[in-house]
Amino acid sequence: MEQTFQNVIDVALIGAGRMGSIHGPNAARHPGLKLKYVVDRHGENASRLADAFDAEVAALEQVLADPSIGGVLVCSSTDQHLDHVLAAVAAGKAVFCEKPLDLDLEKVRAAGPALRDARLMLAFNRRFDPHFVALKARVDAGAVGRLESLHLTNHDPAAPPPGFIPTSGGLFKDFTIHDLDLARWLLDEPIVEVFATASCLVDPEIGRQGDVDTARTLLKTASGRLCVISNTRRSGYGYDQRIEAFGSGGMVAAGNLAGDTVHVATEAGLTGTPILPGFLQRYAGAYRAEMDHFAEVVHGRCEPAVGYEAGLQALALAEACDLSVRTGRPVRF
Amino acid sequence: MEQTFQNVIDVALIGAGRMGSIHGPNAARHPGLKLKYVVDRHGENASRLADAFDAEVAALEQVLADPSIGGVLVCSSTDQHLDHVLAAVAAGKAVFCEKPLDLDLEKVRAAGPALRDARLMLAFNRRFDPHFVALKARVDAGAVGRLESLHLTNHDPAAPPPGFIPTSGGLFKDFTIHDLDLARWLLDEPIVEVFATASCLVDPEIGRQGDVDTARTLLKTASGRLCVISNTRRSGYGYDQRIEAFGSGGMVAAGNLAGDTVHVATEAGLTGTPILPGFLQRYAGAYRAEMDHFAEVVHGRCEPAVGYEAGLQALALAEACDLSVRTGRPVRF
Amino acid sequence: MEQTFQNVIDVALIGAGRMGSIHGPNAARHPGLKLKYVVDRHGENASRLADAFDAEVAALEQVLADPSIGGVLVCSSTDQHLDHVLAAVAAGKAVFCEKPLDLDLEKVRAAGPALRDARLMLAFNRRFDPHFVALKARVDAGAVGRLESLHLTNHDPAAPPPGFIPTSGGLFKDFTIHDLDLARWLLDEPIVEVFATASCLVDPEIGRQGDVDTARTLLKTASGRLCVISNTRRSGYGYDQRIEAFGSGGMVAAGNLAGDTVHVATEAGLTGTPILPGFLQRYAGAYRAEMDHFAEVVHGRCEPAVGYEAGLQALALAEACDLSVRTGRPVRF
Amino acid sequence: MEQTFQNVIDVALIGAGRMGSIHGPNAARHPGLKLKYVVDRHGENASRLADAFDAEVAALEQVLADPSIGGVLVCSSTDQHLDHVLAAVAAGKAVFCEKPLDLDLEKVRAAGPALRDARLMLAFNRRFDPHFVALKARVDAGAVGRLESLHLTNHDPAAPPPGFIPTSGGLFKDFTIHDLDLARWLLDEPIVEVFATASCLVDPEIGRQGDVDTARTLLKTASGRLCVISNTRRSGYGYDQRIEAFGSGGMVAAGNLAGDTVHVATEAGLTGTPILPGFLQRYAGAYRAEMDHFAEVVHGRCEPAVGYEAGLQALALAEACDLSVRTGRPVRF
Repeated sequence: MEQTFQNVIDVALIGAGRMGSIHGPNAARHPGLKLKYVVDRHGENASRLADAFDAEVAALEQVLADPSIGGVLVCSSTDQHLDHVLAAVAAGKAVFCEKPLDLDLEKVRAAGPALRDARLMLAFNRRFDPHFVALKARVDAGAVGRLESLHLTNHDPAAPPPGFIPTSGGLFKDFTIHDLDLARWLLDEPIVEVFATASCLVDPEIGRQGDVDTARTLLKTASGRLCVISNTRRSGYGYDQRIEAFGSGGMVAAGNLAGDTVHVATEAGLTGTPILPGFLQRYAGAYRAEMDHFAEVVHGRCEPAVGYEAGLQALALAEACDLSVRTGRPVRF
Repeated sequence: MEQTFQNVIDVALIGAGRMGSIHGPNAARHPGLKLKYVVDRHGENASRLADAFDAEVAALEQVLADPSIGGVLVCSSTDQHLDHVLAAVAAGKAVFCEKPLDLDLEKVRAAGPALRDARLMLAFNRRFDPHFVALKARVDAGAVGRLESLHLTNHDPAAPPPGFIPTSGGLFKDFTIHDLDLARWLLDEPIVEVFATASCLVDPEIGRQGDVDTARTLLKTASGRLCVISNTRRSGYGYDQRIEAFGSGGMVAAGNLAGDTVHVATEAGLTGTPILPGFLQRYAGAYRAEMDHFAEVVHGRCEPAVGYEAGLQALALAEACDLSVRTGRPVRF
Repeated sequence: MEQTFQNVIDVALIGAGRMGSIHGPNAARHPGLKLKYVVDRHGENASRLADAFDAEVAALEQVLADPSIGGVLVCSSTDQHLDHVLAAVAAGKAVFCEKPLDLDLEKVRAAGPALRDARLMLAFNRRFDPHFVALKARVDAGAVGRLESLHLTNHDPAAPPPGFIPTSGGLFKDFTIHDLDLARWLLDEPIVEVFATASCLVDPEIGRQGDVDTARTLLKTASGRLCVISNTRRSGYGYDQRIEAFGSGGMVAAGNLAGDTVHVATEAGLTGTPILPGFLQRYAGAYRAEMDHFAEVVHGRCEPAVGYEAGLQALALAEACDLSVRTGRPVRF
Repeated sequence: MEQTFQNVIDVALIGAGRMGSIHGPNAARHPGLKLKYVVDRHGENASRLADAFDAEVAALEQVLADPSIGGVLVCSSTDQHLDHVLAAVAAGKAVFCEKPLDLDLEKVRAAGPALRDARLMLAFNRRFDPHFVALKARVDAGAVGRLESLHLTNHDPAAPPPGFIPTSGGLFKDFTIHDLDLARWLLDEPIVEVFATASCLVDPEIGRQGDVDTARTLLKTASGRLCVISNTRRSGYGYDQRIEAFGSGGMVAAGNLAGDTVHVATEAGLTGTPILPGFLQRYAGAYRAEMDHFAEVVHGRCEPAVGYEAGLQALALAEACDLSVRTGRPVRF
């Protein structure tokens, strides 16, 4: 079902890096939005993207002062997310922000008064993935009875470069946070206990920088629902993104996507095409669905489905994971 | 690997019906093309599409006379394809034509001198489907040794309305023609024998109109390769589009695509999401790939990969199928 | 659901070769049967099997004269099947005979008066395979509406030794005959047309001996149901044994069995264990089910589910396939 | 590869209940063993089984005093396992014992001097399952590089009757113990940390009896390998028995087995036959492989592959799970 829009509303992109290069073009191509400005401290990034989509390179102040701008996409570096979001919200814009809001839970808490009721959409991509949305719809429709437990698999294909680690926030705040939000969304109940255990098995350099690369996290909700999160920084077989949800009447699962449907049978067995290699490919549909949702928000048709509160809670859970690993004990809320 | 283009070349769409509503928008959104004109005898179709993509409604003559127009997309009704193609070729345009060129083999033969060397791309969508392209790449790479036989499954989800039948050309020219072209592409050898058998099992009305709705066709090539084509007008389970290619060293197959990866396990078994319901969904990627190829042709970067000769040969094979059913005998070339 | 028997009835095995080495032990281990005698002109074959199962080596006359023998398993060479069956039937025994009854249709026809009403079970293994039985149950239960067409895949893993060809009866009588019987069983209607096309692609030696190794056969029934049979002597990927049945409401299929459920995901893709390599493994369950059925027959609890008439009809169809290939035309009944 | 034996050695079965009814017949049908005696305090159980396999009902003393008895199968109730094992070992017999040795870790520890070097095979069925054996072989062969983590799924189809709970030992000692042994076998390293969390979601009666029915357990090894165990007493979709093993070079997984390969495609989707419903069906092959191994032990061809030490360690881990749930903390070794 395609969205139709009577008019087009201008939006601006802040940050023309890795995520901006996904969301900027999606906004530019969206039938209800026009990409008017690109803001980036690296001029060449900004102008490359602006040129390709007939947008202007601009400074943040100019963007926020322009009353034609209905929405702002915050794709700057993580340490700038909060400042940019606060400024855009203060300027009355609808805001789309890449996760996380910030790596510092206290700063995020402090922004509560300003952001709790803002038109702020936090871009947790899994919530918009068509496969995971279909899974949740089945769970909600009672296809497997009352939900009892979850298994979330989130394995990155290959370890990030060592330089990425120091500013990443660590495995839990950078990576597991997706699963923590997914778990909150699916479990639909307060999480009362977090236990995480982790190792450095992929790359000793990650360990030297004080981080881990392989983890398992256990969550428990108020009514006793259980959730396992499986994470690794390097799968060796592509980007493994799966959910299994177990209920009183069965299981509903969402599997991986392969690059194509081709498989080859020989004496060595039946070999299918590898699963999609990374988030760009795997969540391309989710990123488009995010922009569809943000367009609805910009056009005033709905409130953001996921915003400040989700960002806060996922970060708090990620911090609990860190604490659990540090203390070797479960953290209870 | 995205295509990049230094400039944008204008194209025109002739026919804003079912197929034009796919190819027109794909051209309009293509980074190397601009949809300048829409031509349709039904004004409202033309203006609806033109409005949505900032194009003009125009008459055919105007389009062909405009030197800025580099390419023409012929998506008119089948009985007009050939006239439109000939006119556009005569005007020096690169031409994209929906299959078939015409239902009358003699007319197509007669157009040979004009079209054989023209920049004419015939839009056999299966040749551009990423899954089938991947399968052919495996076959060509020798993944299963020397190719020996093929099984092509092409089952429509639901019977067309009875009003469609009289002008359709019949099952073989309208529907099997896709598989006949696919077979030629994959078998890569002259086909020397055709035997087809058919029934009317889906809808007696189709039979009353002199057509069939269920068929199996056997092809044999010069070196003895065998190919089965399985067709039905109504599968009852979606749009079944599969290939199995058997070689001296194994099998390579391309399977169906489901709407999503979700599956539900209960006491009743494990149920996956239905396969895609029709060509719009199943070949969306193929249609985009067709436009990518046509853009290359319009920009003068390559010759059409599939053109007049393929259209002629597939039609001749479809006519042989008709003859085989009528006579109850194989047709040999 | 296990069979229980109050008493055990003695049976004899004629022929301790390849098939006898399957059926003899199955009879010996069956709770309702005891393998009393083994007959084989090659003494060492007979005694090897007899020793392993506490049976006696005996001559055919002795076996048929022994009133304790309730059933006879005819697993001799094909050219002796008919003689042994006729003798055992004349002696009042229940008879289990490996397919085919004979390669000569006239001889089989001539045996009609003696065998048509005999307690003769012809061991078409596919009819007893639990997977194919489950498929037929779904079809019969209307899971896919009214049956319209079938696709039978029967690909041998590797070509037989050249010495096998001269006495085999050729591809159709030796190999396709299984599918022809399967088609009759599933189509459940008179077959009115047979067209077969064939090549020698696997081994030129097979061609030099006047046989083919790759074939496709098309059957049509009285009401217009269509069936494709796909055969090759060498798949290169194991023993490919599949059925697809298409009806007015969908498709029911039976797939291949792998050696185990293990699969490995690496950057090269997802590789499953090869499908079972040959009939010994693939039809082990079918062979046990055959013996279960024969035990019921020997104990007088039921008539053979498949006997003379099925053997005659399948052979007649195989001969029609041969004729079709020879004449290049369909054969109509 | 079938085992061959020059002679047959007599064995006795102690306990003709649920597990005895599996192992007794397997022993009776084994080419290297003869079931001579059946011992059971419920005479009718013993005689039913003995009659069916030509064995004698006997008292334990008689069995142990009979020098012809080479092996004893202990399938009595759990609280008698240890007594029966000790007596049989003392009598010089090779012993096959159903898991667990006992529910009381201290008692098992105390039996160490007598059993550590005994010819005692503890029947952890998963270790003999052909699919899991194939998975381990791939891991050992380095198919996925260095092993890093495991996910074990062990979901019972339906909750046991409430009367079963009090003597079961609880979820961890009764059920998870299988996974704990499986984890030890696959991880191939000392486990240094156990954390378990559990709920009663399936049946409140289980909770009233002080047990849990849904649990997740996390194990960590000395080198940092991680293992998740997922357990529930009621899946609602059959007996879910899966392993995923993740290594530096990919994943190797063993999936579920369906009752047959049939699947049905309709507008509602593609539905496969349910997975096997319980341990009788799922581990039928494992039980036969257990008997093959025990026959080797009885014939003196090898030492038991899994014995006292494995039983002790798995029980100690199960007790650690209990302790972890009770204290809400991980248990470290």
